[in-house]
Amino acid sequence: MEHIAEIREQLARVSTATVQTQLFKRGLRNTFMFGVGPLAPARARFVAEAFTLRYVPAREDLDVLAAFQDPAHPQRRAIEEAPPGSALVMDARGDARAASAGAILCTRLEQRGVAALVTDGSVRDSPTIAGLTMPVYTTAVSATTNLVLHHAVEQQVPIGCGGVPVFPGDLLVGDAEGVVVIPRHLAAEVAAEAAEQEHLEDFIMERIRGGAPLPGTYPPNAATLAAYRAHREQDGMDGPSAAR
Amino acid sequence: MEHIAEIREQLARVSTATVQTQLFKRGLRNTFMFGVGPLAPARARFVAEAFTLRYVPAREDLDVLAAFQDPAHPQRRAIEEAPPGSALVMDARGDARAASAGAILCTRLEQRGVAALVTDGSVRDSPTIAGLTMPVYTTAVSATTNLVLHHAVEQQVPIGCGGVPVFPGDLLVGDAEGVVVIPRHLAAEVAAEAAEQEHLEDFIMERIRGGAPLPGTYPPNAATLAAYRAHREQDGMDGPSAAR
Amino acid sequence: MEHIAEIREQLARVSTATVQTQLFKRGLRNTFMFGVGPLAPARARFVAEAFTLRYVPAREDLDVLAAFQDPAHPQRRAIEEAPPGSALVMDARGDARAASAGAILCTRLEQRGVAALVTDGSVRDSPTIAGLTMPVYTTAVSATTNLVLHHAVEQQVPIGCGGVPVFPGDLLVGDAEGVVVIPRHLAAEVAAEAAEQEHLEDFIMERIRGGAPLPGTYPPNAATLAAYRAHREQDGMDGPSAAR
Amino acid sequence: MEHIAEIREQLARVSTATVQTQLFKRGLRNTFMFGVGPLAPARARFVAEAFTLRYVPAREDLDVLAAFQDPAHPQRRAIEEAPPGSALVMDARGDARAASAGAILCTRLEQRGVAALVTDGSVRDSPTIAGLTMPVYTTAVSATTNLVLHHAVEQQVPIGCGGVPVFPGDLLVGDAEGVVVIPRHLAAEVAAEAAEQEHLEDFIMERIRGGAPLPGTYPPNAATLAAYRAHREQDGMDGPSAAR
Amino acid sequence: MEHIAEIREQLARVSTATVQTQLFKRGLRNTFMFGVGPLAPARARFVAEAFTLRYVPAREDLDVLAAFQDPAHPQRRAIEEAPPGSALVMDARGDARAASAGAILCTRLEQRGVAALVTDGSVRDSPTIAGLTMPVYTTAVSATTNLVLHHAVEQQVPIGCGGVPVFPGDLLVGDAEGVVVIPRHLAAEVAAEAAEQEHLEDFIMERIRGGAPLPGTYPPNAATLAAYRAHREQDGMDGPSAAR
Amino acid sequence: MEHIAEIREQLARVSTATVQTQLFKRGLRNTFMFGVGPLAPARARFVAEAFTLRYVPAREDLDVLAAFQDPAHPQRRAIEEAPPGSALVMDARGDARAASAGAILCTRLEQRGVAALVTDGSVRDSPTIAGLTMPVYTTAVSATTNLVLHHAVEQQVPIGCGGVPVFPGDLLVGDAEGVVVIPRHLAAEVAAEAAEQEHLEDFIMERIRGGAPLPGTYPPNAATLAAYRAHREQDGMDGPSAAR
Repeated sequence: MEHIAEIREQLARVSTATVQTQLFKRGLRNTFMFGVGPLAPARARFVAEAFTLRYVPAREDLDVLAAFQDPAHPQRRAIEEAPPGSALVMDARGDARAASAGAILCTRLEQRGVAALVTDGSVRDSPTIAGLTMPVYTTAVSATTNLVLHHAVEQQVPIGCGGVPVFPGDLLVGDAEGVVVIPRHLAAEVAAEAAEQEHLEDFIMERIRGGAPLPGTYPPNAATLAAYRAHREQDGMDGPSAAR
Repeated sequence: MEHIAEIREQLARVSTATVQTQLFKRGLRNTFMFGVGPLAPARARFVAEAFTLRYVPAREDLDVLAAFQDPAHPQRRAIEEAPPGSALVMDARGDARAASAGAILCTRLEQRGVAALVTDGSVRDSPTIAGLTMPVYTTAVSATTNLVLHHAVEQQVPIGCGGVPVFPGDLLVGDAEGVVVIPRHLAAEVAAEAAEQEHLEDFIMERIRGGAPLPGTYPPNAATLAAYRAHREQDGMDGPSAAR
Repeated sequence: MEHIAEIREQLARVSTATVQTQLFKRGLRNTFMFGVGPLAPARARFVAEAFTLRYVPAREDLDVLAAFQDPAHPQRRAIEEAPPGSALVMDARGDARAASAGAILCTRLEQRGVAALVTDGSVRDSPTIAGLTMPVYTTAVSATTNLVLHHAVEQQVPIGCGGVPVFPGDLLVGDAEGVVVIPRHLAAEVAAEAAEQEHLEDFIMERIRGGAPLPGTYPPNAATLAAYRAHREQDGMDGPSAAR
Repeated sequence: MEHIAEIREQLARVSTATVQTQLFKRGLRNTFMFGVGPLAPARARFVAEAFTLRYVPAREDLDVLAAFQDPAHPQRRAIEEAPPGSALVMDARGDARAASAGAILCTRLEQRGVAALVTDGSVRDSPTIAGLTMPVYTTAVSATTNLVLHHAVEQQVPIGCGGVPVFPGDLLVGDAEGVVVIPRHLAAEVAAEAAEQEHLEDFIMERIRGGAPLPGTYPPNAATLAAYRAHREQDGMDGPSAAR
Repeated sequence: MEHIAEIREQLARVSTATVQTQLFKRGLRNTFMFGVGPLAPARARFVAEAFTLRYVPAREDLDVLAAFQDPAHPQRRAIEEAPPGSALVMDARGDARAASAGAILCTRLEQRGVAALVTDGSVRDSPTIAGLTMPVYTTAVSATTNLVLHHAVEQQVPIGCGGVPVFPGDLLVGDAEGVVVIPRHLAAEVAAEAAEQEHLEDFIMERIRGGAPLPGTYPPNAATLAAYRAHREQDGMDGPSAAR
Repeated sequence: MEHIAEIREQLARVSTATVQTQLFKRGLRNTFMFGVGPLAPARARFVAEAFTLRYVPAREDLDVLAAFQDPAHPQRRAIEEAPPGSALVMDARGDARAASAGAILCTRLEQRGVAALVTDGSVRDSPTIAGLTMPVYTTAVSATTNLVLHHAVEQQVPIGCGGVPVFPGDLLVGDAEGVVVIPRHLAAEVAAEAAEQEHLEDFIMERIRGGAPLPGTYPPNAATLAAYRAHREQDGMDGPSAAR
């Protein structure tokens, strides 16, 4: 991904809602992971490339505590191999009754510089994990160990998470509302336009707070757009693209 | 509704649980919107008449961003037309995967003096909305725009919200637990008796905190009721109605 | 249960996750009540023997407000008879649409020295209940009175709660993550080994925080275990059992 | 129950829908077991008193194949003790993933003259069971043995089945649509009036088939009722009660 | 709708799957009512314009048996006013626990020449209704009368049914698989192209039955399409449109 | 797998319930695909090795009709590459709202000699598919094309189907009740013992049909087992293994 630093910087200031709107404009309707929320909303903010891990249902003869003695166990490998700056995204088939990870694994991820853990299952030791700096997104919490229901299979394959397709390398944006997935080939244009949309909506919000009615303001008519462009020029920045 | 100011004042001090008990005594079993909770519990408190909006599932050729250019779009009209002091109640068919509204619309509602927004769907921009003074009740949050799943149809018709029937003009009471719906024709009597029940239960709670056992105290026997009436007279107020 | 004081003391320091691991090692896969969480996470901590209450669906001719006039009503009896130090566990068939109890009953439980209330339904008056010292675990909140959906039948029989079997006298451990159920005959050995596991995992966590990789550390290899034992001896305590 | 033979005879000719209407007229709204249907609709017809059995979630150390060696095992006892002519009703907590019974147990019930098996779980060996004369009602089928998820506890206690309260001795009516529960003390009056309703609705249906419009026919106005009474007198039977 | 007779004739021969493909090609992804199936698959076949009815949740003081005495009751009006040849489509909010209609109402619809009844709830008296000639589509069956959960509000407004938007006048096609909704303005082109697709797929199916592999056959390559056109000309009909 | 022909022959005569019992005896509790049933129960019978296909959620820019032009499309490849005699098992993440396959693909599978199609999603063109000789197992039917919700990714990897782990090469047994999965390394012993169990249960069933009570008969006591062995010897076969 060219300009990855610039893309990250642009996305660092936009909400998941704004990114979702940009993806919807491009025909993608299913990009926000519904039901996958942050354990600690106050620190929930990240932009990262997806590193994926896939679980299938557990089998009692395979998924025993001794399985973790093998350093090549797919879950443990993923914890050690997800690159610093990436987000480890787990497909737990939406089954949160058993955890996808616990406090020691999450702490190791944080130590390694991983940007976030995202699962459509749950975590255990959630009170400890909620105190980490690294944001962790789940659908629930459960003290039940992953071996009871989950069997880790492979990493870096396409998965579903929260009902959304996630391909390795997709760009994820997380905030206190949740996580949105940007297909990799759209990252640059979505990042640029999302940053612009955010500026425009900040301007609109100020008008609404000042008592302006929706008609003419949101969506903006020509007069409001002209006022916005004037405001932007004062700040030394470009107005929104004509295509908006 | 006669005496609306008095009704509001009486209801302003009672919990949704107390209102629900009063409605149950009158044969109404399904009045609390299960699963519809406040985004910001600390500020969740309102009494308001219902102004309704109804969604059906979206259709891809109708529900496009350009639809909002029309100031007569039913969702946008509802935001501008819900009277100050009313609660805007949305029937999202319980589908929270896409939002019913976002931060700009909620801010406009607050500006217009609307008392609350209630939906059995979700909102987007929830971190911003949680900072408003106006309470907002939802079943979840989702960054996905309403156009993906919802098509606004009409306002001020009977709807369902959180599984409860809501007719335009019904009186809604919201607290940190959720929202209860009072059919309009019952509002005056429910408000009066609910205020009384609240006084009695405060008295009972003091006794329980003082170590009294449930039998004789809750529900109160004749002796406890007599003690309550004496306590009420000291405070210069009437005892509970004989019918309780 | 012999040594109950010692068992309680050992369990008072361990998490539900650690207890669950110990039970999983003994072949019990379904011991954590998924979806049953504390109303007030900051005060969610208890160890107690289970005192059970069972509900069936309500019937309109039986479940009327007058039913509570009978001091032998099974719900009211359970509130008065659950022993101090026990946890009152309610089987609400997972139906949270109507409450299992309200603020007056919970306050009475607290007054009587009951250690916790656990239900796979909901409570009403939840804002008040969240302010109690006694922890209360539910799947949701609802202002709807229990009579609308629940009919209390009998106490001190085996029940299901949150999908987990609970027999009278089982030992429950609750923390901010939820509640785990220890069959009575396993309580002593699980308590002892869980306390040990907790010590070892604290040691491992320190190593992970210090940058140690998972392989060799978690699960610990012989070298890590030797270092742990040395650390434990310094502290004047025994190492983990050979059986671990 | 006096006149039980007469009650059974009256109910043998009425549908579950008609019985449900009679119960609704008496304020009972929740009497039909939603989702509990017959394995073999062509032979689904019974009237019987309820004999109940209750399951809680299984526990791996208790629910092993050897448990059935004990002839006092609650499930096996219920199969042998449910009286001829009764319906064995099982509360499986709505969990159909593991069976409530299999072909050998159902065959034994049929041999013993039990009128029906009703569970809000499932059965295994369903192809064999569908060939029995005794009707069996379930929510699904599953080859998984009950021990995996269910632990039988006690018989002849109040239970829930399909969301409906069932007390031992309640009268159950089953047809190809499902099962409805009549509280024992209402059985005589519901049976009598249901038989009458059925006659009237047969008359109404004939008129509708003949082209009559709903208004005046359904519900019947005075003229239609008069015609019905004349028709009934021709047949030598009484008209509907004035109370209808 | 111009050429309605021609449209009906074209659609009378195509499956719901084929219609769905045509709508998908036009960007409509949500047109098949998932979970809404025919009571009697052997007679499940219709093409009709939608006549809609909308329910909200019931309220105990409004939804009593006496409500049907009013010939203007919305449900009863809809039964009498849905035009011959139309399909009566009911929005029951997906709640099948209480019926949307029973045998007398369905018989009246059949008498009046209505083409089908479609609900995302259930029907009662289902054994009788399954014997009608008019197809009836539901998600389940329930003997519980609609008054227990449903309050009929208005007819001929946009609704949701089975998660799909239905506008009055939309064209519905039903077969043994279920029901698909064609927005009115697309009916003519979808009908024409669906009939063509059906012919082509019949041709492809014959080749597959004859042992042809998928590659080159399905989807058809140029050679297969040429063979199809030759086959069509032999039968005296046109080939598929160039646009396919 | 050695002796595969013998294994198949033994399993061809046993029910899924019997296989499930054998797996439960070996500690495997989750082997029957709950909710995955045959479209045509009268022809539902197969024994086959699993050939797997995995779907993730669809993405609108990838999952378009043109995708099938590529003969390497994973779904189309799986249809052509699943070996004759195998069962094609699809992980549709339990999402049946869009089909996993349609009539042309199923016909091709049948032509190629594939033994069965099993999906935890749905099929379209179900009336046609129900007429095939090859058994097809699904959770539902849906006319919606798979592209709307499913994106085929890879074949012959471990998957989940109906909540059960399926590894390529596992042995599947299907009957009118559903599908059970036998881990490959257990196939020989489970097949042998399941055949034996089936013989014993046939013997027990005959006794139950003859009026024998459960105690002593099911499970069999020493006398019943002796009678069974005598019966088996008469037929020239071995009795059950001592280990049973």
